[in-house]
Amino acid sequence: MRHRLPPDHYINGILAGDRLLLSRAITLVESRRPDDQALAQLVMEGVLSRSGEAGPRPAASSVRIGITGVPGVGKSTFIEAFGTYLTQLGHHLAVLAVDPTSQRSGGSLLGDKTRMETLSMNPNAYIRPSPAGDSLGGVGHRTRETMLLCEAASFDVILVETVGVGQSETVVHGMVDFFLLLMLAGAGDELQGMKRGIMELADALVITKADGDNIAPANRARMEYQNALHLFPPTGTGWFPPVLTGSALTGAGIATIWQTIQEHQQLTTQNGQRNQRRQAQQLTWFRALLRQQLDSQFYDRPGMQDQLALMEAQVQAGTLLPGQAVKMLFQPSSSGSR
Amino acid sequence: MRHRLPPDHYINGILAGDRLLLSRAITLVESRRPDDQALAQLVMEGVLSRSGEAGPRPAASSVRIGITGVPGVGKSTFIEAFGTYLTQLGHHLAVLAVDPTSQRSGGSLLGDKTRMETLSMNPNAYIRPSPAGDSLGGVGHRTRETMLLCEAASFDVILVETVGVGQSETVVHGMVDFFLLLMLAGAGDELQGMKRGIMELADALVITKADGDNIAPANRARMEYQNALHLFPPTGTGWFPPVLTGSALTGAGIATIWQTIQEHQQLTTQNGQRNQRRQAQQLTWFRALLRQQLDSQFYDRPGMQDQLALMEAQVQAGTLLPGQAVKMLFQPSSSGSR
Repeated sequence: MRHRLPPDHYINGILAGDRLLLSRAITLVESRRPDDQALAQLVMEGVLSRSGEAGPRPAASSVRIGITGVPGVGKSTFIEAFGTYLTQLGHHLAVLAVDPTSQRSGGSLLGDKTRMETLSMNPNAYIRPSPAGDSLGGVGHRTRETMLLCEAASFDVILVETVGVGQSETVVHGMVDFFLLLMLAGAGDELQGMKRGIMELADALVITKADGDNIAPANRARMEYQNALHLFPPTGTGWFPPVLTGSALTGAGIATIWQTIQEHQQLTTQNGQRNQRRQAQQLTWFRALLRQQLDSQFYDRPGMQDQLALMEAQVQAGTLLPGQAVKMLFQPSSSGSR
Repeated sequence: MRHRLPPDHYINGILAGDRLLLSRAITLVESRRPDDQALAQLVMEGVLSRSGEAGPRPAASSVRIGITGVPGVGKSTFIEAFGTYLTQLGHHLAVLAVDPTSQRSGGSLLGDKTRMETLSMNPNAYIRPSPAGDSLGGVGHRTRETMLLCEAASFDVILVETVGVGQSETVVHGMVDFFLLLMLAGAGDELQGMKRGIMELADALVITKADGDNIAPANRARMEYQNALHLFPPTGTGWFPPVLTGSALTGAGIATIWQTIQEHQQLTTQNGQRNQRRQAQQLTWFRALLRQQLDSQFYDRPGMQDQLALMEAQVQAGTLLPGQAVKMLFQPSSSGSR
């Protein structure tokens, strides 16, 4: 990591919209080094106290949009088209990624920026690849902080991208104002990889690649999913998740999707749900961090992983009752008793 | 609580199928008194080591069925009809309840045994009302232990009933071999109370009250839900959750429901999923208990609840970063520093 700067340097730079300093601050946030973490914390606190996360601007006026869908659904081309449209409307767009799969694949969702060629050259868009090789909780934590930094740097639309195959979409759902699920026409087999339950998290579904020969199947899929969503219990927010179609190729539907998101924001701002959702998310974030800390104090003890592995094998086999196992873990160890 | 007995007394009684001793052992399991809990643990261990939870009988040959649905769906009449049918086939049936709502309503799901008049008089059925006023985790924990005790007492079908309005259905899903969701024809409004996501936990849906004028709507609902389920991602077990209809009044569909459960058990026994599911459940149970223990060590500290409430208000308001709050909680307290 290159030379570190005093906290105020980052803070002033971010608030002035300096992308280089924003990027370097995000790198600090993502770093695992304790000194980087301490500095990142100071930067976050400074930015937060001055950008008015609690007050009316700018975080409160931003819109945070989560986008998910299985690989192959066309997420990056959709974000390219949708993001370009937003910048044409005068918005400043940040694209972040939560990608727990990067641990396994070794790559990053947005690591290959050439996947979003147009957007990455756009002066009003800021694309931040996901940090590779981190834990889910960690990524979620860092993405939240990155989001706050981007908002402080005056980006007013934040897109958080994730792959709908693991737990990451729940994490992303827990940090955005609007959760968009991209789907392919044809359903069924294409959904193999998608986590069950994800459809019910969505504030809207978009059937992608609705162009050419695919328009008719996309419209059929739209009707089917709309019918399926009618069978779901209401969200309790007064919002009924619509199913839309869109094409990154022709641009069809892109404006409607943005209009839908704005309608959702207006409705939930008026009925107070938007603020409630954000407050609940703050609380969830705090509790998740607290849990992480509690867990690491326990699980990181020397020898604990081995002891747990042995116990879990016995518990799975049914030879040790869970209650017994827990009691053993919290008893003074026999090695220490004499 | 009445006079306590030596552990072997309970153990022998349970293994001999003595219902009075079974009930008294369950009361011990449900008790919050540390001495009762210690005795309950001894009884559990004794029963477990001798009933062969790890071995081939009797737990492995039992079938654990979770049943959920919103209030009004007709759960108790369904269980009455279904349970009576099972005892006619020669099965020994235990009906347990996980009822986190009892805290709020002050009553218990099965507290009013007259709701299942026929079944409660049936010598081959054992109905255990849910313990009132307990935490969700606690109830789940105790229901698991109660289930093991019932299996040791030779009950070979365990029905675990819950209301599909809270988190309890996830807890119940995590302790059964088959999860049955009861639904009403007409959908939509009736589902108001149901938690989103629950439909995707189900191994089968049953449209209840399919009798008289309601047969046609029930069949329509069956088709609609079956279509909706086709849009869900596969379960990964080779099982495709069917939608059935049933009537507690006429008995229509009851035999088919049992046949469906048996087919599921055969399939998942053959492909190993049943055993995997049970092993994963044991592990989940252990981890949940461990988490409970870790949490209570932290949250039960003197003054912690007040401190957390203050912090959470600031976090929600956005004036305190979650990371800062956690750091403050784990720093040596300022009162101790000088």
